[in-house]
Amino acid sequence: MDIRQYIQENEPRFLDELFSLIRIPSISALPEHKDDMLACAERWRQLLLEAGADEAMIMPSEGNPLVYAEKRVSPEAPTVLVYAHYDVMPAEPLELWNSKPFEPEIRDGRIWARGADDDKGQAMIQVKAFEYMVREGLLRHNVKFIFEGEEEIGSPSLNAFLKAHQELLKADVILVSDTSMLGADLPSLTTGLRGLAYWEIEVTGPNRDLHSGHFGGAVANPINTLCEMLAKIVDEDGRIAIPHFYDDVEDVPAAEREMIARIPFDEEKYKKAIGVKALKGEKGYSTLERNSCRPSFDVCGIWGGYTGEGSKTVLPSKAYAKVSSRLVPHQDHEKISRLFVDYIQSIVPEYVEVKVTPMHGGEGYVCPITLPAYQAAEKGFTKAFGQKPLAVRRGGSIPIISDFERILGIKTVLMGFGLESDAIHSPNENFSLDIFRKGIEAVVEFHKAFGA
Amino acid sequence: MDIRQYIQENEPRFLDELFSLIRIPSISALPEHKDDMLACAERWRQLLLEAGADEAMIMPSEGNPLVYAEKRVSPEAPTVLVYAHYDVMPAEPLELWNSKPFEPEIRDGRIWARGADDDKGQAMIQVKAFEYMVREGLLRHNVKFIFEGEEEIGSPSLNAFLKAHQELLKADVILVSDTSMLGADLPSLTTGLRGLAYWEIEVTGPNRDLHSGHFGGAVANPINTLCEMLAKIVDEDGRIAIPHFYDDVEDVPAAEREMIARIPFDEEKYKKAIGVKALKGEKGYSTLERNSCRPSFDVCGIWGGYTGEGSKTVLPSKAYAKVSSRLVPHQDHEKISRLFVDYIQSIVPEYVEVKVTPMHGGEGYVCPITLPAYQAAEKGFTKAFGQKPLAVRRGGSIPIISDFERILGIKTVLMGFGLESDAIHSPNENFSLDIFRKGIEAVVEFHKAFGA
Repeated sequence: MDIRQYIQENEPRFLDELFSLIRIPSISALPEHKDDMLACAERWRQLLLEAGADEAMIMPSEGNPLVYAEKRVSPEAPTVLVYAHYDVMPAEPLELWNSKPFEPEIRDGRIWARGADDDKGQAMIQVKAFEYMVREGLLRHNVKFIFEGEEEIGSPSLNAFLKAHQELLKADVILVSDTSMLGADLPSLTTGLRGLAYWEIEVTGPNRDLHSGHFGGAVANPINTLCEMLAKIVDEDGRIAIPHFYDDVEDVPAAEREMIARIPFDEEKYKKAIGVKALKGEKGYSTLERNSCRPSFDVCGIWGGYTGEGSKTVLPSKAYAKVSSRLVPHQDHEKISRLFVDYIQSIVPEYVEVKVTPMHGGEGYVCPITLPAYQAAEKGFTKAFGQKPLAVRRGGSIPIISDFERILGIKTVLMGFGLESDAIHSPNENFSLDIFRKGIEAVVEFHKAFGA
Repeated sequence: MDIRQYIQENEPRFLDELFSLIRIPSISALPEHKDDMLACAERWRQLLLEAGADEAMIMPSEGNPLVYAEKRVSPEAPTVLVYAHYDVMPAEPLELWNSKPFEPEIRDGRIWARGADDDKGQAMIQVKAFEYMVREGLLRHNVKFIFEGEEEIGSPSLNAFLKAHQELLKADVILVSDTSMLGADLPSLTTGLRGLAYWEIEVTGPNRDLHSGHFGGAVANPINTLCEMLAKIVDEDGRIAIPHFYDDVEDVPAAEREMIARIPFDEEKYKKAIGVKALKGEKGYSTLERNSCRPSFDVCGIWGGYTGEGSKTVLPSKAYAKVSSRLVPHQDHEKISRLFVDYIQSIVPEYVEVKVTPMHGGEGYVCPITLPAYQAAEKGFTKAFGQKPLAVRRGGSIPIISDFERILGIKTVLMGFGLESDAIHSPNENFSLDIFRKGIEAVVEFHKAFGA
């Protein structure tokens, strides 16, 4: 049966299966969802078996378990390892959702739910393409699946798992659908990712909350101090002021900057879509360079003092921030992490104490466009979307992609089908049904081309 | 009966009565405590009647009701109006309390509870001194009481109440026990208070939370921006950078600076008590000047982005801060409020939108030491504490003290009995039983001297 017909006939079942996954709030950041993690892993195990895997199992790790499945065609054939993650981001702030985050709804040709795209929807594309290849007897290579449950918290247990199971996970290429395209009519393949470093900062001033009238003006306020320190991390030109931060950052090659400049990009439309009057970033670089090839620094969360209703006056004892930096290829996240800690400690004034805790991190990644699997992916996109995909670097981080290369020695092809409008990590995450269908077709064509 | 003997014989009852008030969590900042406000007001009404008032009543206002009571001795005699407040601050963070905030406990000669000092304990001093004067037939002047329930949220309904009841509240002097002394062995009377202005700042960047990987580096982060703006409010010399902020600030007169310099003050002990290695404040002023005669700026609360467990990466849509400035006499809080709003709007970068909401405010206050009621208070302290109290300016704000003067035309004498170690507004608020007893005696002696 033709793949398009197969999708048409089976779509209600595909969506039922996807919705059964979405309804499990597998939020890895919140310990109260431990049971949901297990339930979600188990549901994937069943679905992978039903899709045609010879075997599928739950494998323990130091943290949430992983789901492993495989379909062996021949010991001589090459092997594709499909990686995905079954955990999702927290759904807060809940009041901004138009429908419940864990009750998927279809409206305007889109699935609305946390995980609709990232990564349950995209993982389902892989599984349904695999199902078609198996049922139609078209598979010419072995396929393995490894789905983890800690991607959104930085995959703390994955490295140890990879090291412990190098033989099991042996493959010729890793296939991942967890990135996005330039647009619905502008298919693209991701050839570069940014790395990540993440820290929590705790500033302690006085040993207890003080009356701001009795002490204000004479005792340093840790929130004021935290703000002053955070304001010293990015300079006026949008450059990160940490000494040696840029030491390993390669200047973007002129050829690549030219290619980026050719990507159709409407800055006015981009600003309008996110509702800002002006953009801000590093001097000397374009928006597309700033959000993909250049490092960034963001305060992801801040809190301290009285944050309830009304107007309590207080000179608080403590203030906190969660901060992150997106890194580019060749920046070592552990080195950057140390540089950051050193920099913060070097600017701590004597009137507060500051603790900086590195939380997690990962390296950037580059995929060469000469890789046979990359070219198979390019063919898949071309057939499904009717045009050759652009090769682009993206600003997001999948720290484990570089870990795959480092630990398993395997390159990854990033066949991502998300759109910016999918609002992943935000309220009203959604995923286009049209893209879902085209995605399945693109992965089927990848398998055909890779097997040939 | 001698006042000391009276206190000794009646203390268990005094404490029972005080504890019955403390057990009512009359937190004005939290709307869910509306019923507690009414219960607390009613409890005071009963206690004022039992203490000897001719009548006591609950009077409605636009917000929480007030308790009014009076004892008329003679139409020709002067009148003392005792002001106090029955509301308390929120008790958060609860985990830092050694005993439950609304279950008073006596340990180490101190009462431990929210409101033990501010202002239930101090108000009880006034009521028990009044009770003694009435029962012993010593009262030679009229006494009125007005207890409000919104002091900790800036007394939003009091001005309208004062204007509506000028005749009822007519008096020669207002007596307030809601300030603190320099030390248990260093009695002092407060002759100056700082004013207050308070704002909430809302910074909006993108119209939704964004993925910090896909947008980070190209789109301004509202938390980073908020921190940068807050860092521009106090300059390197500890001066507030808002244009015209100091226009109406009087330089502290040389004579007063000399008096302040004579106040026994151990900076090392002060630092040790609050657990900081260094102090910070306006260049050119001493610590005691900085926290009493000079303005201050504090971020009382800040929040935005992901503040839960773990490490969510996000470029948030919004960031918030609650900020306040302590003002000195002659600074108009409404003018300062406008200057602040104008300044913030003048430094808002084009890539975010900022809303600044003035929350509440009040003027500073000065009490002349030549006032007869001040001198009666001085005598009261001298008898109770065995030494003449120092006249000092304090850094806290009771905005309504200047409103009393403006609206009712009455000066206030601030007979406060708190200690810095009482931890008002903080976890583990407490009040010394010894001070409680001496306070009652001091107020009794005030009444005797004032009536003479």
